[in-house]
Amino acid sequence: MAEKLRAISLGGLGEIGKNMMLFEYGNTLLVVDAGIMFPEHDMLGIDLVIPDFTYLRQNARRVAAVIITHGHEDHIGALPYLLNDVLPASTPVYATRLAGGLIQAKLAEYPGREALNLRRILPGESFTVGPFRVEFLAITHSIPDGVGLALHTPVGVVVHTGDFKFDYTPVRGGQPGFARLGELGAQGVLALFSDSTGAERAGYTPSEAVIEPAFDRIFRNAQGRIIVATFASLLSRVQQVFDAAQQHGRAVAVAGYSMVKTTEMARELGHLQVPPDLLIDLGEALRLPDERVVIITTGSQGQPEAALARMAEGTHRQIEVKPGDTVVISSTPIPGNEEGVARVINRLIARGAEVIYPPLMPVHVSGHASQEELKLMLSLIRPRFFVPIHGELRHLHAHARLAERLGVPRENIFVVENGVVLEFARDTAQAAERAPSGNVFVQGSGVGDIGPKVMAEREILARDGFVIAVIPVNPDTGEPNGRPELVSRGFVYLRESGELLDRAAERAWAALQGSGLRRRQAIIERAQDALSRFFYEETRRRPMVVGVVAQRAG
Amino acid sequence: MAEKLRAISLGGLGEIGKNMMLFEYGNTLLVVDAGIMFPEHDMLGIDLVIPDFTYLRQNARRVAAVIITHGHEDHIGALPYLLNDVLPASTPVYATRLAGGLIQAKLAEYPGREALNLRRILPGESFTVGPFRVEFLAITHSIPDGVGLALHTPVGVVVHTGDFKFDYTPVRGGQPGFARLGELGAQGVLALFSDSTGAERAGYTPSEAVIEPAFDRIFRNAQGRIIVATFASLLSRVQQVFDAAQQHGRAVAVAGYSMVKTTEMARELGHLQVPPDLLIDLGEALRLPDERVVIITTGSQGQPEAALARMAEGTHRQIEVKPGDTVVISSTPIPGNEEGVARVINRLIARGAEVIYPPLMPVHVSGHASQEELKLMLSLIRPRFFVPIHGELRHLHAHARLAERLGVPRENIFVVENGVVLEFARDTAQAAERAPSGNVFVQGSGVGDIGPKVMAEREILARDGFVIAVIPVNPDTGEPNGRPELVSRGFVYLRESGELLDRAAERAWAALQGSGLRRRQAIIERAQDALSRFFYEETRRRPMVVGVVAQRAG
Repeated sequence: MAEKLRAISLGGLGEIGKNMMLFEYGNTLLVVDAGIMFPEHDMLGIDLVIPDFTYLRQNARRVAAVIITHGHEDHIGALPYLLNDVLPASTPVYATRLAGGLIQAKLAEYPGREALNLRRILPGESFTVGPFRVEFLAITHSIPDGVGLALHTPVGVVVHTGDFKFDYTPVRGGQPGFARLGELGAQGVLALFSDSTGAERAGYTPSEAVIEPAFDRIFRNAQGRIIVATFASLLSRVQQVFDAAQQHGRAVAVAGYSMVKTTEMARELGHLQVPPDLLIDLGEALRLPDERVVIITTGSQGQPEAALARMAEGTHRQIEVKPGDTVVISSTPIPGNEEGVARVINRLIARGAEVIYPPLMPVHVSGHASQEELKLMLSLIRPRFFVPIHGELRHLHAHARLAERLGVPRENIFVVENGVVLEFARDTAQAAERAPSGNVFVQGSGVGDIGPKVMAEREILARDGFVIAVIPVNPDTGEPNGRPELVSRGFVYLRESGELLDRAAERAWAALQGSGLRRRQAIIERAQDALSRFFYEETRRRPMVVGVVAQRAG
Repeated sequence: MAEKLRAISLGGLGEIGKNMMLFEYGNTLLVVDAGIMFPEHDMLGIDLVIPDFTYLRQNARRVAAVIITHGHEDHIGALPYLLNDVLPASTPVYATRLAGGLIQAKLAEYPGREALNLRRILPGESFTVGPFRVEFLAITHSIPDGVGLALHTPVGVVVHTGDFKFDYTPVRGGQPGFARLGELGAQGVLALFSDSTGAERAGYTPSEAVIEPAFDRIFRNAQGRIIVATFASLLSRVQQVFDAAQQHGRAVAVAGYSMVKTTEMARELGHLQVPPDLLIDLGEALRLPDERVVIITTGSQGQPEAALARMAEGTHRQIEVKPGDTVVISSTPIPGNEEGVARVINRLIARGAEVIYPPLMPVHVSGHASQEELKLMLSLIRPRFFVPIHGELRHLHAHARLAERLGVPRENIFVVENGVVLEFARDTAQAAERAPSGNVFVQGSGVGDIGPKVMAEREILARDGFVIAVIPVNPDTGEPNGRPELVSRGFVYLRESGELLDRAAERAWAALQGSGLRRRQAIIERAQDALSRFFYEETRRRPMVVGVVAQRAG
């Protein structure tokens, strides 16, 4: 049997973020991206979500390289958990210059895990790993220096787009390699794996360049300070803020940990062009006249711990938002963040700031291709087989529909879930067995130690709190010998409802007294039942009730 | 001093939902609407939010009437908490026919609170309450039979728009009373209180009529069953589903409690026109060929307990979604519901259904005026003073900006918070003192018994769970005499981390042993400190640690 190319997604199908794909041929396994996902609202307490590495652990010896398409968290954030623990720190990591810098910065946040065997590759360049020749394809996205991949394999060429849009006039970095994509398509591509994030959006995503006139108008009209919040990694936007500031005679200060760190690194690598004197210290900025200052900061997604939210709350150590300030929120909320962003906007307005955000003015554009661009990618590459990646099932499905309309036969389109192994030969593709895949929760220093049971407990505690009953028993007989002591949190306001707990303890004692029960478990269950029923009758709520038996001399 | 007209919002300024305004002159107080707000994600466990009724309780004797502009939850949902408890059940409630029916249905959900002194008024009609002549103004919204109000008072005319858009071709009910609005404007309006929900949206909100061609295309192409989810109260949309079904030779069945209830009532009141035989029983529908059936249902906001989510989960008792089904989600997510809606869509697709939702096709339009319509309202009414209502601060602010651009002087525009008393005389308006206002949380049978302390506890519990330490003390000396017993929930998975709790108990005992402490509070604090530190060191998490002292014979 001839060798096949196998493609497995461990993240990025049926979800936003946490992108990770594997390509393997014979004894060589390539990892493409290692991203995290930010938790949804019902993933209580979880800091972040990483892919299930079981399959990689089982096949670690075969892993020849990790290839990173660009430096966003949802493509590099899981590297600190992948290297050292699953793969040796010496595993080669291929990335462009900026992505490499961001990876180094990410690993530096995890002491003891900084080791990195980084191979810097330019867009347009190729390298060989075992039977694969890997070509970095120039594309455009909301971070400069992002690439797609052409994997030249013994069974044919596979194109993986990475995250992309087609921006003819990117603010930083080069244009997409339209001609090379067409050349690949003309020569024949076996399979296209393409970014589906924007597949529900009709038309074309505007160029980053459309931001410029909006910034120009805002900078022209602002009377006082200008505060711009955006993603630290959105370096083209950061560049646009510097450019607008320079044109309008304002100096720029940077606030927020990741913004400070990323702009420094990007300047060193040449991805930000900032003339001397334009960038000033935040303390200096606060001493300048307001109309001479721009502050660029983090928190455009409403994250409560970020600088913008702290300014909105009035808890930022240096910056107090005041009437006359113009705050520009240069992003749109990622699904799930709408409430947080709205809250920050409302609080900034309450402090007297003028707040500008989409759709009031076009101060943000997406980094992902809309439908017409996805059609262009499909039309340039003309793949035999098509696999929509990066997005919830709804996005993959919408993307599959587009491909069908462009003439890709339905049976050549694979809308699959994470873990499904796709096997490609020269003329065929099929979904084969499944590899282990899923969400692994990270909280604090724990990785994967929180499962459905703990989550279910947190859900109950979040909704109704708990009541603990410490049930005294006679040390000699084991029988309950008094009213339980009740302790509650998150249930009712105790100062007003001590009487409720008194009656509850009475009810529990009534259920235990003279019951003859001696087994701890039986006593605990009897008390828990009595208390749960009592609380539901009295409050229509269902706090978690936990009984504990404690010996007490009669 | 001449008497003044006082206007107070107890809800609806700086938030979405929970709309309630008071207008008072001399000894007469009118309540306009009594709405609820659905909880935000961080209002853990809360079922719904109602206005703070303190001011109404203090002034209950002066309340002459409750006036309801339309029958949506965010305008009537707090009535069961207002009547009986705060105001006598005999307080006259003025409403249009459909709103009246919905109020009766709402009160029927609260046994013992059904009593209602309902006065049915038609759009265009007026009635007198004390010094007020109240005129119901015909407007259009996403529910038929909604009205705005013209309050003819001794100091002038005040217009309150209710929720509105300008729909020239409403599907049910009459057109907006453009001419009457113009006549009022020509004769002079003291103040306009106008719906700000859509104030960030440029252009015009499309007519409900635009849905028809989309439905027509969907019904023409669907091969199997059609399932349409929308708001039960969006009766024009429900009518459109019936109309499309009739044209395409399909029968309609209704699923979901509120959809069944509302369609029944609306048919009785003549707000839905359904020919005999078009509406069939759900059981009957399941026996018909798939291509002859439409099911209309609830859950378009992704609510987990509603019919559509249960179909998506595979837990609906009667309807199993299958390949060939076409599911139409005829609404857009209310902010905060995006994740839930996305989840339902993804799960329906996973079951093989074709799912159609905005923006894939225009199957929903907003019920609220966009910027051009808000300008038209301002231009018809030409108010001396302007108060944007209904919306978060960002919406009120955007609306105020529109009014300014139309020539309302900035000092005549009042962007105020709930509770601020606005006083109007013939030629003046000013913000005066504040009345008590705020969010009152309802959970289960408890109203207002959950405050910031309980919410803060729930937040900790949701994130990190808890550990209880039952600390044994010698009954004679009061000194700790052994390792505490630890009980945890929502913290770590116990089967794997019993060892962690063992070491924690050891650590606590080490902190207590030989400490000489005898005061319960001191013992508890010492143990809690030791445990909190230990857990943070070991896990980087901060579970709630609660110590309890239990006597145990040495």
